[in-house]
Amino acid sequence: MFSFFKRKYNLYLAPKRNLAKNIKKTLHYEPVRINLFELAFHHKSLNNGDTIYPYSNERLEYLGDAFLSMVVGEYLFQKYPYKNEGFLTKMRSKIVKRKTLNDLAQDLGLDVILSDYSIGVISNTMAGNAFEALIGAIYLDGGYEKAKKFVVREMLLQHLDLAELESVDDNYKSQLLEWSQKSNKSIEFKLLSKTKTNGRDLFKMAVSVDEELISEGEAYNKKSAEQKAAQVALRCLKVNVS
Amino acid sequence: MFSFFKRKYNLYLAPKRNLAKNIKKTLHYEPVRINLFELAFHHKSLNNGDTIYPYSNERLEYLGDAFLSMVVGEYLFQKYPYKNEGFLTKMRSKIVKRKTLNDLAQDLGLDVILSDYSIGVISNTMAGNAFEALIGAIYLDGGYEKAKKFVVREMLLQHLDLAELESVDDNYKSQLLEWSQKSNKSIEFKLLSKTKTNGRDLFKMAVSVDEELISEGEAYNKKSAEQKAAQVALRCLKVNVS
Repeated sequence: MFSFFKRKYNLYLAPKRNLAKNIKKTLHYEPVRINLFELAFHHKSLNNGDTIYPYSNERLEYLGDAFLSMVVGEYLFQKYPYKNEGFLTKMRSKIVKRKTLNDLAQDLGLDVILSDYSIGVISNTMAGNAFEALIGAIYLDGGYEKAKKFVVREMLLQHLDLAELESVDDNYKSQLLEWSQKSNKSIEFKLLSKTKTNGRDLFKMAVSVDEELISEGEAYNKKSAEQKAAQVALRCLKVNVS
Repeated sequence: MFSFFKRKYNLYLAPKRNLAKNIKKTLHYEPVRINLFELAFHHKSLNNGDTIYPYSNERLEYLGDAFLSMVVGEYLFQKYPYKNEGFLTKMRSKIVKRKTLNDLAQDLGLDVILSDYSIGVISNTMAGNAFEALIGAIYLDGGYEKAKKFVVREMLLQHLDLAELESVDDNYKSQLLEWSQKSNKSIEFKLLSKTKTNGRDLFKMAVSVDEELISEGEAYNKKSAEQKAAQVALRCLKVNVS
């Protein structure tokens, strides 16, 4: 009974009722402790230099980020019972990576709510961070089960296509080779050096396009060094990476 | 009633009762689905090359790792209400890092249980990985709340000294300077190169000890490049890093 009044007080009588309504409409989640959600939208740039106890959404973002990794991790674990942990880790990083979260925040319209709380321009990253902070707020507000349902329902089922993510290619070397065929360039991977570091072989690989050196990559095995060099090359060449 | 019998069946009648007893004794957790715990101790090296569906603890380890990060993250969030997310992230990485988990697994005596399931030598890392896999098994077996209580009780309260961890220094540069004073060596940090990569400045820093080049580090800011170079130097010089 008490909790009923508390909830209604927050939602309909408090001056923050607009935010509560917006959250209910956008995220289909009914907030109880509305202060948490206000905090989730509070970017540190709004503090005007108060550094003693800076009021910002960064702590909530930290919590939301950890919770998200866990829930997405478990969801994939259950969804793909026959896939190994390498596949699961890769899929998870595709889902929780900055770009996916930023896009999702835009999809959900968080940038619109954010603009009520901000003076300057809302960057994509600000919206993505607010999304993580919101997940942290929902976790604290509603508990583990509710927050888990929220992530699965609003994020994984509604806004992400796992089958599509599965097929996204994050093999940079093969992407670079594909690009070179399309654009009629010659690509070469070369071993620049192999040195002993901490008793292990350290490989430095280079990528050349039409015999011009474009990038280098260093790792403890050749394949990873190639991947690193290819990734940098794709960026330098401004090839659209999936 | 049914679940009572299921539990007792698993614990006292099944041929796996020894494992169940061991787990109860070591971890103070009473397993229900004992197969999960058997899997948690199964290192992939025991498979004799069966690569079609390799039976190993790696999937459980992946799950346990994600769960652990989340629970430790939340614990620190609640314990340090006035610390910023930078502090929380650092503390968490000190707790969930490989070395801490390996030590913890030894403390708990998991290596002893593991040796029942293994032919060769049990490495520290094998025990640490089994510990993460066990956390995954407990999460699947007992659910969120029980697994959380387990991590807080057996790991955070029993085996870790957070106050001590707080004071552990992971500033590699300052550790290197401290070492140089003790051992009467001269240390120099030098900027080797500054190049434009992807439109950003990339710094390469070098560490010299008594005018001999020891290591290099590369990053998008000088401070991080110094840290990286110092970390490698500490390893090369075999300085005991905290």
